[in-house]
This record gives sequence, C-alpha cells and structure tokens, in this order.
Amino acid sequence: MSVLETIIRKRNGQRLSAGEIKELIDGYSCGDILDYQMASFLMAVYFQGMSLSETIALTEAMAHSGKTLHLTGLKGMVIDKHSTGGVGDGISLALAPLVAAAGLPVLMMSGRGLGHTGGTLDKLASIPGFRTALTSRQALRQVRKIGVAMIGQTAELAPADKKIYALRDATGTVENISLICASILSKKIAAGIDGLVLDVKFGNGAFMPNYAAAKQLTQVLITVGKKNGLKIKALVTDMNQPLGNAVGNSLEISQAIEVLKGEGPADFMTLTLALGAEMLVLGKKAGNVKEAEQILRGLIPTGQALDKFYCLVKTQGGKINQLPVAKHKLVIKAPVSGYIYSMSTREIGLVATMLGAGRQKKEDLIDYSAGILLHKKIGDPIQAGDLVATMYYNKAGIVPELKKRLLAAIVIRKTKPARHPLIYN
Amino acid sequence: MSVLETIIRKRNGQRLSAGEIKELIDGYSCGDILDYQMASFLMAVYFQGMSLSETIALTEAMAHSGKTLHLTGLKGMVIDKHSTGGVGDGISLALAPLVAAAGLPVLMMSGRGLGHTGGTLDKLASIPGFRTALTSRQALRQVRKIGVAMIGQTAELAPADKKIYALRDATGTVENISLICASILSKKIAAGIDGLVLDVKFGNGAFMPNYAAAKQLTQVLITVGKKNGLKIKALVTDMNQPLGNAVGNSLEISQAIEVLKGEGPADFMTLTLALGAEMLVLGKKAGNVKEAEQILRGLIPTGQALDKFYCLVKTQGGKINQLPVAKHKLVIKAPVSGYIYSMSTREIGLVATMLGAGRQKKEDLIDYSAGILLHKKIGDPIQAGDLVATMYYNKAGIVPELKKRLLAAIVIRKTKPARHPLIYN
Repeated sequence: MSVLETIIRKRNGQRLSAGEIKELIDGYSCGDILDYQMASFLMAVYFQGMSLSETIALTEAMAHSGKTLHLTGLKGMVIDKHSTGGVGDGISLALAPLVAAAGLPVLMMSGRGLGHTGGTLDKLASIPGFRTALTSRQALRQVRKIGVAMIGQTAELAPADKKIYALRDATGTVENISLICASILSKKIAAGIDGLVLDVKFGNGAFMPNYAAAKQLTQVLITVGKKNGLKIKALVTDMNQPLGNAVGNSLEISQAIEVLKGEGPADFMTLTLALGAEMLVLGKKAGNVKEAEQILRGLIPTGQALDKFYCLVKTQGGKINQLPVAKHKLVIKAPVSGYIYSMSTREIGLVATMLGAGRQKKEDLIDYSAGILLHKKIGDPIQAGDLVATMYYNKAGIVPELKKRLLAAIVIRKTKPARHPLIYN
Repeated sequence: MSVLETIIRKRNGQRLSAGEIKELIDGYSCGDILDYQMASFLMAVYFQGMSLSETIALTEAMAHSGKTLHLTGLKGMVIDKHSTGGVGDGISLALAPLVAAAGLPVLMMSGRGLGHTGGTLDKLASIPGFRTALTSRQALRQVRKIGVAMIGQTAELAPADKKIYALRDATGTVENISLICASILSKKIAAGIDGLVLDVKFGNGAFMPNYAAAKQLTQVLITVGKKNGLKIKALVTDMNQPLGNAVGNSLEISQAIEVLKGEGPADFMTLTLALGAEMLVLGKKAGNVKEAEQILRGLIPTGQALDKFYCLVKTQGGKINQLPVAKHKLVIKAPVSGYIYSMSTREIGLVATMLGAGRQKKEDLIDYSAGILLHKKIGDPIQAGDLVATMYYNKAGIVPELKKRLLAAIVIRKTKPARHPLIYN
C-alpha cells in the first residue's frame, strides 16, 4: 500500500487498517514519507475523522515510534496528569510537588505553550537555571531520589508525535479528536507510566468549544488509554475564564508558591486538589477521592508541599529567588459598575502572548516576566474605578492597543451571571 | 493574513479574497510558503471547494506567477487544444499538424503522463531526437517559420502551476474542479494564446467519472477562461474505452501517422476532425464547423497534413524512421464469443503503464515502445479465439499477471451493448 493510496483512502472516507496506519507513522518517523504527504493526510483526517480502532492503531504506532521506558525501582505506581490546555493553567506547577509530598512518585512530562495557551515547560523555564531537558534516565534517577521530576518531552520518546504535532500546528489540523488523543496518549504510553489523570477543558479558552466535545474527547481518551493498559481517569472542567489569577510564566510560578502556602485563588486550589486526589486514588495511595483530598490538604499547612516544590526546583538547577520581574506595569480599571459577566478567555491568552508571555511564531523568544494578573473572577461584583487587571511587560509599543483588547475581553454587566461548576464528571 | 489563517479559513468553509489567494500563490512560488502548508491547503480545497470568484483569482494568480508571453508576428490567431486526459488520447499528435496545414498557427504546450493516462510530451519523446524542451522564444520562432510547434511546459510560464501540480499528484488532491481549472488555464493564459478548444473527458478512463461532472468542469473552464480574455469552446467526450486502438507512446505515434494518411481508427478520426474544426472556427479560418471539417478533410488525401507532421518532427530534431519497436509481443484472444460489452479503461491504462509505457513514480523511465494495441472496440462482435489485443513489451517478468488483468478489463457478453455517442455538446 503506497502512502498516496493511504491518503486517498482516508480522503474518500474509507477505514484504514492498523498495518496501514503503522506503515504511515513508521514511514514518516524515518523520513520516507514527507511532510507534505503527512500534511495532506492530517487534513483528510480532519474532514473524515478516524474510527475508534483507527485511533487506537494511531496511538500505538506513535507510542512505539521511538524508545519506550520501563519505570522500575520506584516506590509505587507512577501517575501523570495531563491537561488539554487553557489560559492560566499552571496547575501542574503546584500539583506535581503536592502529590509527590503525599508519597506518589511523579514523573511529569510537559509541553510548550501553543497558540493562546501557556505551557508548563515555559513556566518552569522562567525560573533562572531550571533544566527541563533531562534525559529519561536522568529524570528517573531524580524521581527515585526526591520523588518528583518535571521535564520536557524527550526526543527519545514518541518522536512521531513531536514531528506530527509541529506539523499540525503549522497546517491547521490541530482540532481533531483522534489526532489530539493520539498525541496526548502516545507520549504517556512511551513514558511507561502506570496511570493518567486527564483534565479535559472546554469553553472559550480551551480547544474544545463545549461540554459535548470535551465529553466526546474524554470518552475516546479513556477507551484508547485503557486499551493500551493505562489506568485512566478524566475530569471535564470549565475554561470560560482563566484559571486562577495569573496568566504568564513567572507570574504563574509565584501563584503556584501561594497555592502551596494555602494562599492561592480558590478555583486553582479546588482543581489542584481534585486532580491530585484522583492521582492518589489511581496510584493506590488513598481508598477514595475524599480521603485523598484530606491527605493533600494536610500537606499544605505543614509546609511539606512547598518544601517539595523548592527541593524540585533546586534539584533541577532553578534559582527561585531570581524569578524575573517585569519592568513596567499598567493597571486596568472598571469603566462601569456591575458584575464580571463573562470573559473572552482566548483573547486574554492572546493579549498575554502579545505582551511577550507566549510565542507568536515557533522561533520567538518568551519574555518570562510578562503577563496579566486578573483581580476579579466571573460573578464578582465591581464598582467603576475598581482594579480589574494588571498588565506586566518590558516592551512598550503595542501596550495601549493591548489594554483596549484586554478591557474588551472582560465583560461587565448589571446582572449577575448564572454560576457554572468548575468541575464536571 | 498569515498562511495558517488562510488554511484555517478555507478549512472552515469561508470564502477567500483574491488578495489572500494571490498572497498564497506568490508565497508558494517564491518558497516562503512551504510544501506541507500548500498540501494541507489543497486538501482543504478538496473538501470545501472554491467559489467561481475564488477559482478565477486562483487561475489569475497562477497564470501570473512567472513570465507571460505575447505571441506577436504570427499570421493569425493562436488557438490551442487541451484534453483533460484519457487512455490512448494521442489526438494532439495528428491534430496539431492537421490544423497547421489549414493555415492556423499552432503552438501546442503539452504535459507528461499522469497516473493511468498518457501524456503528449512522452509520446513525442518516443521519437528519437525529438526536442520538446524549447524555450518560448524558440517555439515562437518555429511557429513563424513552419506554422507549428509542440513543446513541454516551460519553467518560465506559470511556475506555480508546475509546483502545485506535482504536489497534488503526490498528495491525493488531483480531483477538484477548481484546481483542475486553474491548472489547465493558467498555463494557457501565460502562453498568450488567443483561443482554446477543450476536450473534457468523462467515463471510466477519465478523471471526471460522469457526464454531469464533466459538464460542471466545462462550465467552470468556460467562465474562468472568458473572464481571462480567452476565446473558448469545449466538447465533452466519452472516455469509457481507449480512444483509437493504440495505448503507448511509439504505438500512438504510428497510429497518428495512419490517421494523417486517412487510415486511422474511426473514433480517433472523428474526434480529431471535430476538435480541429472548432479550432479553425475560433481562429476565424472557417465560418462554421461544417465548413471547417471540409477544409480539414481535404488536407488528408493531398498529403499536406502528413507532410506538416513530418516537417514538425524534422524541425524539432526527431528521426521518425528510428521509432522504437518492442522486442516482445503477446497476443490476447477472446475466451468466449459475443460482443465487446465494456472496458475498464483505467485498468487498460494501468496495464500499459506497468508494461513500461508510463511512470509509476515520477522518477521512472518510460519504455517508449511498450504498450497495447486493441483490435476491437465496444459493440464489436467477437468469436472465441479472435484476437482482442496485443501487448508490446521489453521486460518479461510481470507479463502473465498483466495479461490476466488486461483480459479481465475487456468484458465480453452475449448481448450487444447500447451505443453511446463519442462527442456530447
């Protein structure tokens, strides 16, 4: 079967065999199949979709496109957490040390920011000296020693995913459930983890527009994950406003420290505990979610969670007391009184990106101290003249324009909006 | 507007502006936009289609992606003919000299074979020494001198088309009316011709599966062509069996000589005269089609048409008496009696390709003497043991398998099939 025939069969809506999919992924990994052929295949998948069995085959082929790890010599199962991405979603920064403090080994593999969303890897990189480019062997040694490591996707694991992900980002083929599923799970399967807790986000700051789409993705992820021997649990969560108050790399690091001190934003804390509890249950460190949450809560006032964070940062070379601070800040005040009614979350993420917190092109350098602090959440009452947000930045030029965009992205109305849950199940 | 936004807008079914399309084509021509981005764009076009105004913009952008010729100093208008491609479609080989003999200057620009179809350029190249790689200046000088030139697409004219065409061929994005239209017309507009007669083929040996699809393409071609100042006329023709008797390069050259002697297959002669007549009418060498056909018919018994062919071949360096002949031949006989009921035309083209008459990959060398002669047409009565076809080849290995496939592609039944016209209007 030639690659051209495979592309045409998918284009025409036919089902591909597992062998055909493996041939395609292996061929692309080793360079026999070229970027432009994969790009047209991905766009055909965007339009024709993939069946569950095709998605399973794709995930497996990508998972086995490079090395696969065997996580041995650890005291317990290794449970990872993955979010489908949102604005202000720095949960992993607090979650990894918190869960590790509870005795569950954590090997967390994170990605860079994409589009309007931030990436845990970029946030960690805002700590001067912090090394994310560990080999899998180095990371494993660190987990054995201090119980936690946070690293970037290594070139050794699921290299096909890395290649396909970059191509999707440049060819308008990101938003497809099968491709998203294979991308998320292939890395995790290759990393040899035992279990995975998923945070599948929906809303105007997420890649899934609504609950139904998030639920559909969740079901595919669970089925494909289980088929590949992963213990798996997913929470569907709301991303119709940024999570927490901070959007931007070093700002989110500072916020994570507040959270681990028990002084973080309520929504951020709630979600951290909920996801952490699921991790402890999957990893058999607690019998149920309630018990797990109690364990986690207990690690905050004692300082154990925060100590684990500092230990993690120090072990990976980071100097937390040198966290960069932006030269300029600009406060944004409410033009009218009422309630925060809604937020254009994607737009807030884009404004942060343009302030320097993210990349507009792959090659762009990030300004780690740039970003936005939000002082209000949806449903909060507000008076004209009250502080709504603060923009942090180092380069001046476009800031007046961005101020306008940010203000337009935060809608104030006279009526109080209906409350929506943060976590769905 | 970034290329990624353009891809996503097309993917989402939005209309692109002429400026956006021009930016895309210009960017691709100069290498700023990469193959994989164009590949995903083309697949999005495959699924979402293009409006008439988008198709016009695409054709114009491609036509002006390189040099455009001004055909001056010729005695009359220059009318070209283009076929959308079929099996055994060597019409141009006889048509160009025939029409030139009638006094209409002919500058015919042809392509290589694609998939199961042959290309006029490959057929001409089967004549030892024949040079098809003339510059546009050389070709124009030749038309001034002897009234006719047959050349390949030069790198100077519509380079975007050449690049996009090769990409479509490798990415499963050939079958789209807007892309087909822009590819056909951009080259012709760049070549500066006055008029164009189109042979739009449909059926199991053509790219358009049925009459309705061919008619739809025809209407787009006519509208877009006229919008670009071309005089244009189209015939929709049947391609449910190979045209004439020969499928293969030097075999089709020999058949063209028979046709110019008045001894060729009836269907081939009919279509040659019909297309030639349209060319004469568009070029104002005849008042109507009937008169034009009479002029053309008159050039055959006098030998003027054949002389023009020999003159053309000689001028372009070809040695017609050195036409290659295959080392081996294999006759195929009817297994049963009845009528030739139908043919799998595409399959016949593929068998010829595999005998060596075409390329399976772009880099393949053509075996110019390989091919198939068919001794029967649809509707012909046949007795078991009668000669159906002869295969010509030089490499032996796969021939028994190909014999089976060829025999299976020619269906014999007891009942006589209904007659279908060759030319529709």
